[in-house]
Amino acid sequence: MTHIVIRVVNIFFNHCVTCYTEEGAIDSSIRDISKATGLSIATISRYINDSGYVSSESAEVIKKAIKELDYVPNENARAVFKNSSNLIGIVVSSLSNPFFAEMTMHLEEKAQERGYGVILFTTNDDIDKEREAIRLLKGYRVKGIITTRTQLKSEMSKLKTPIVSFETEVNDKIITVAADNFKGGQLALKHLLERGCKKILHIRGPKSFEAAELRYLGFKDEAKRQNVNFDIVQFDSDFHVAYNLEENIGDKDITEYDGIFVFNDIAAVLILRYLLKRGVNIPKETKVIGFDNSYIGGLSYPSLTTIEQSVDGIASKCINLLLDLVEGKNIKEKRFYDPVKLIQREST
Amino acid sequence: MTHIVIRVVNIFFNHCVTCYTEEGAIDSSIRDISKATGLSIATISRYINDSGYVSSESAEVIKKAIKELDYVPNENARAVFKNSSNLIGIVVSSLSNPFFAEMTMHLEEKAQERGYGVILFTTNDDIDKEREAIRLLKGYRVKGIITTRTQLKSEMSKLKTPIVSFETEVNDKIITVAADNFKGGQLALKHLLERGCKKILHIRGPKSFEAAELRYLGFKDEAKRQNVNFDIVQFDSDFHVAYNLEENIGDKDITEYDGIFVFNDIAAVLILRYLLKRGVNIPKETKVIGFDNSYIGGLSYPSLTTIEQSVDGIASKCINLLLDLVEGKNIKEKRFYDPVKLIQREST
Repeated sequence: MTHIVIRVVNIFFNHCVTCYTEEGAIDSSIRDISKATGLSIATISRYINDSGYVSSESAEVIKKAIKELDYVPNENARAVFKNSSNLIGIVVSSLSNPFFAEMTMHLEEKAQERGYGVILFTTNDDIDKEREAIRLLKGYRVKGIITTRTQLKSEMSKLKTPIVSFETEVNDKIITVAADNFKGGQLALKHLLERGCKKILHIRGPKSFEAAELRYLGFKDEAKRQNVNFDIVQFDSDFHVAYNLEENIGDKDITEYDGIFVFNDIAAVLILRYLLKRGVNIPKETKVIGFDNSYIGGLSYPSLTTIEQSVDGIASKCINLLLDLVEGKNIKEKRFYDPVKLIQREST
Repeated sequence: MTHIVIRVVNIFFNHCVTCYTEEGAIDSSIRDISKATGLSIATISRYINDSGYVSSESAEVIKKAIKELDYVPNENARAVFKNSSNLIGIVVSSLSNPFFAEMTMHLEEKAQERGYGVILFTTNDDIDKEREAIRLLKGYRVKGIITTRTQLKSEMSKLKTPIVSFETEVNDKIITVAADNFKGGQLALKHLLERGCKKILHIRGPKSFEAAELRYLGFKDEAKRQNVNFDIVQFDSDFHVAYNLEENIGDKDITEYDGIFVFNDIAAVLILRYLLKRGVNIPKETKVIGFDNSYIGGLSYPSLTTIEQSVDGIASKCINLLLDLVEGKNIKEKRFYDPVKLIQREST
């Protein structure tokens, strides 16, 4: 009797696995195929999962029904079966910054090319929103996470899910991809000197923004090497500079400088606007250079000279490294710096 | 014996349901809790799913282990059990358009506020990419879909998943949310007349872009009512106007107009640039008005007068209507037009 019971249980167990984990008993579509074809759910399941014998006649009938009923396999069931979804999570600070908007688009495209869907979270640099995003991504058992400007280094360090961090260095083990921001700062200083600037200003990003700090350090390093001085105006925010530009600049007269390096393009375009409004001739009287090469610099007049960080190159690197980790590859190198280059336009 | 077999099968079945659909047998975390507490998977499952008796001592022990092990329930398993995930799909044409970038961000925020995650697809207005997005969203059994500028009206009509369409009218049954584009076109014409314009040009969007067509029709309607004429330059693309502005304008001399209404902000900023580069004084010689009120119009110099469509209002409407549909509400009205308003800045 024991033998019989075990056999029955086994049959039932296989059925459970089939209909619960591969399709879900409550999934109407596999039932629809069963109804339409008159074949058993078990047979259809064997066909769909390629997990056992199905006669060629039945296979033909099922194939036709799948097409007619427009049946799509349940990804969630697959995810449960494998304890991992076909999704990757992207946690991005804001899509109001055109660089991040373009980067998100590239990440999504490249993930899809490699067969992964993307769950998106925007945090607006709010630490609680980031925490909630991470909690939900765990719940969805995403295959991997691409994070930008994380403020949760210790939580990130504890996650078992593969992570690639854009810009922020989380710890020694988590891969970081970033543009070579330090080099970019150096290029900016060199360019202003080549263009003959004597009185130089740097609009420095918020100190919490690590990439902007590296741009500043590179700029400073090159200035030291070239034995030139520069002044600094410190900005306390990144995306919403628009709303407090006057407050950030204070009573400093930035129109008296003949060369200005701004920590990113969106702030640089605002500086252009500020100077033009005060009658400064750009580039004749003042030269302005930004950082990013987001599309916004090509729309302004004069168009913006900038240091390009390749959004396409960075997005590819992030996705490829993440999926290599997902597939179990051991990647020794943990820091990847994407090359930057000067894009000269009308503002210098 | 039959009785015994059925009983055994029942026990086994319950176990399958528990561990496969609620947690997944291969899910290590529920096992980790079992190991850490010395309690059975069944007990832990009852606690997590609130599906049966657990002694208060055991409950306390499990609660502590969940916290220590940082256990998060498997959303995919829940999705299989309910045959629907806690995800909604967003299919957006491009994040390079700042309006869509901001809208995507608002949609994601509002979805999260109501407890839903977002799977993002960008299509770049490519019909094959849109088709693939829909196929994958079906696979993920998303709760609902927000689509923008769909080119797959007949496929959309066949979907059983609730849909809210932004801008494009799919059919009589699917809800469309859009700004009142026709009214916006009327406002633009009125404004140019109020500002004293006599020789008026409309930069018309690609005809496939329904919202832009409505803006044109509203502009034309008001012009007829006011008995004024205007010329048209037809643009054949939306986002990538930057790359073929000269080609679109051709040998037409647009500097001779004193009032220009452009179908969206990004194209309007490019027109500003084009005119400024040719020495036109804006707004003195030529007044320019765009459409959207995306942040880009606030960055340019002169800043752009525009017709605002409220991204926040539209995103709220889309999410609220979609989740009402998801929750089974019957919504009789199928067309929702969000009010527009004039935002006057420096360009008029």
